[in-house]
Amino acid sequence: MELIAGGVCAPKGFKANGIHCGIRKNRTKRDLALIFSETKAKAAAVYTTNLVKGAPLTVTKSNISDGTARAIICNSGNANTCNANGIEIAERTCEALAECLGIDACDVVVASTGVIGQPLDITPIKQGIPELVNGLDYNKSQQAAEGIMTTDTRLKEIAVEFTIGGKPVKIGGIAKGSGMIHPNMATMLVFITTDCAISSEMLQKALSTDIQSTFNMVSVDGDTSTNDMVTLLANGMAGNQEINCEGDDFNTFMKALNTVTVHLCRCIAADGEGATKLLECKVTGAKSEGVAKTVAKSIVCSSLTKAVMFGADANWGRILCAIGYSGAQVDVNKIDVAFKSPKGEICVCQNGAGITFSEETAKEILLENEIEICVDLKDGQFASTAWGCDLTYDYVKINGDYRT
Amino acid sequence: MELIAGGVCAPKGFKANGIHCGIRKNRTKRDLALIFSETKAKAAAVYTTNLVKGAPLTVTKSNISDGTARAIICNSGNANTCNANGIEIAERTCEALAECLGIDACDVVVASTGVIGQPLDITPIKQGIPELVNGLDYNKSQQAAEGIMTTDTRLKEIAVEFTIGGKPVKIGGIAKGSGMIHPNMATMLVFITTDCAISSEMLQKALSTDIQSTFNMVSVDGDTSTNDMVTLLANGMAGNQEINCEGDDFNTFMKALNTVTVHLCRCIAADGEGATKLLECKVTGAKSEGVAKTVAKSIVCSSLTKAVMFGADANWGRILCAIGYSGAQVDVNKIDVAFKSPKGEICVCQNGAGITFSEETAKEILLENEIEICVDLKDGQFASTAWGCDLTYDYVKINGDYRT
Repeated sequence: MELIAGGVCAPKGFKANGIHCGIRKNRTKRDLALIFSETKAKAAAVYTTNLVKGAPLTVTKSNISDGTARAIICNSGNANTCNANGIEIAERTCEALAECLGIDACDVVVASTGVIGQPLDITPIKQGIPELVNGLDYNKSQQAAEGIMTTDTRLKEIAVEFTIGGKPVKIGGIAKGSGMIHPNMATMLVFITTDCAISSEMLQKALSTDIQSTFNMVSVDGDTSTNDMVTLLANGMAGNQEINCEGDDFNTFMKALNTVTVHLCRCIAADGEGATKLLECKVTGAKSEGVAKTVAKSIVCSSLTKAVMFGADANWGRILCAIGYSGAQVDVNKIDVAFKSPKGEICVCQNGAGITFSEETAKEILLENEIEICVDLKDGQFASTAWGCDLTYDYVKINGDYRT
Repeated sequence: MELIAGGVCAPKGFKANGIHCGIRKNRTKRDLALIFSETKAKAAAVYTTNLVKGAPLTVTKSNISDGTARAIICNSGNANTCNANGIEIAERTCEALAECLGIDACDVVVASTGVIGQPLDITPIKQGIPELVNGLDYNKSQQAAEGIMTTDTRLKEIAVEFTIGGKPVKIGGIAKGSGMIHPNMATMLVFITTDCAISSEMLQKALSTDIQSTFNMVSVDGDTSTNDMVTLLANGMAGNQEINCEGDDFNTFMKALNTVTVHLCRCIAADGEGATKLLECKVTGAKSEGVAKTVAKSIVCSSLTKAVMFGADANWGRILCAIGYSGAQVDVNKIDVAFKSPKGEICVCQNGAGITFSEETAKEILLENEIEICVDLKDGQFASTAWGCDLTYDYVKINGDYRT
């Protein structure tokens, strides 16, 4: 398997585009994105668990209930959530796009991201669709990725190539993240494409399994969005024998998919609102997978741990504290904690108590912008990783006045 | 019932003191506090649910297992948690104090607050105890309150007077709060005194019941401390007939206790680390008390809601979002949201959707430093209140480099 260029357009038969249609006032910011498959694709998706759901999710769920889709349209600047006419707007968006593309409206995945509770005017979307469709190209993954960004500061895109039964197969993905991201309840906006031939059932299984250890293990701020979803389209154009059961081919696909999703998770966490650091918490020695996950998530979600990381302060008591209130049953007197970065590794706590360490070395390690928090529970064989970011002045600034 | 001066020394027979003994480097900051009852008192307590527990909690739990105590000693500057010799230090503190006071070491409540995982040197405590004891006085509640402060910026103290069976009875309390405070898992350091005659069982019942709707409904940052406890001493010197069952007298006592605890909750939330605003979230119309509490807590815990309140931005979508992911079963299409402050009240969301409102008026209301977030679920008769604060640059600043 190797990393390749092209994002969601890397797999055969996928075009994309992103334009400014006028939902956002800033004319230099793209606000409408499209991904299109030349042939009908199998479709899988996972959605936020928030009871307050964006109208586009309801429409998408219905549209892909037959397990297929051909296009994904997504606007930024307005979430189309908590609006009386939200469903109607989402449906009309699908219809307008379908007409222009000459496809069925039921083959459109629709998504929105932005402010909640402000009516979404369909006019700029309808006016923008012809330009969006006419501009579709095999090299415009980046434009689509830009079109779905909100407070994101960096483009999130990846593609990989691998082989199944001797045929080259590709998976590409784009994502938008930043705020309102919390594990195990929601995800974020992620659109993944592949030319792999795979049944709808196995595609959904692959996605639902993968997110348990990827998108559900990312936290920026503990808030679970109303609009998040991960969608995966597979158009089969790689020409491999269709994967319709578990086995070697499915495992190969899962491994490649995981490379894509882990990369996007790291991108989302590193670009968390206001973040200066990516935090990767690796918990080992847990007596169950549940314990490992609970502990890892509790640490990356702790405001105090996040603030301490911003300050590059080796205050490991915050980590022990977050483990202690996680709800997981652990023996606190066995826990080891170490910090790791490109500058080195330092153990700061052994058997649940402090040990002597060089504050200077610790500071040097923690001043890097990718930090591993390594926790060994010494209580079993299970492990888990969670991703998060530090809590900074800029998080407060970005969210203190998001709408203006 | 009326508010009176005197804090923990307002009830008959209670003396207090607070000194600088040398745990903290800053010589102008008191770091050791003492509360002493002239006669043996009934004692009740509740403790953090964090699995990582401060050594003082273990020692206190054992000391008051007989339901009685006479003294409370508390140091700030070091939590005496995650230290190999923590229990021994806490026990030796009790012994040194007991010897100086001429009481039994088993009648001492011991508490610590500050940094986790740094050995607590008992030398300054032992050296300070004679001065601490000699300086005990009936008008030094304030000194004791100062001695337990960490990142607190304001002293937290209250006392009330009421009558039981014609006898004047008093309850007084001091608290320290600020960071690492989260509902339903832990509390904070709160010491309450009363001269009411009440059995140990009824005292514990009063405290355990009261905290469900008070200290367990306060959140500053979602982090549950390792060291928090609420202790209540009752020395019976008011001379009322001992309360040893439920009934009018117990209800009168509960009501007065609730006045003290709600006041301290509001003080703690308003003085949350870096806070500029007290948030009081009042949920009504819930179909159960559990739903009301879950929704109220989810809102005051939401980082996005907290940041929005800092910015005085009427972005009610954040509130709906926090209700939606709370885990409580609610009908989102029924929810009304309003903001209230001394400047007025404004409804911003009706039946789960936005309504037209004056952004200018909303801003004026939200610029105040005490904000009520009123949520009506229109789904039943239950209500609940939770307290929190805004998320500010200063929270990050305080916690980014807490130890230095």
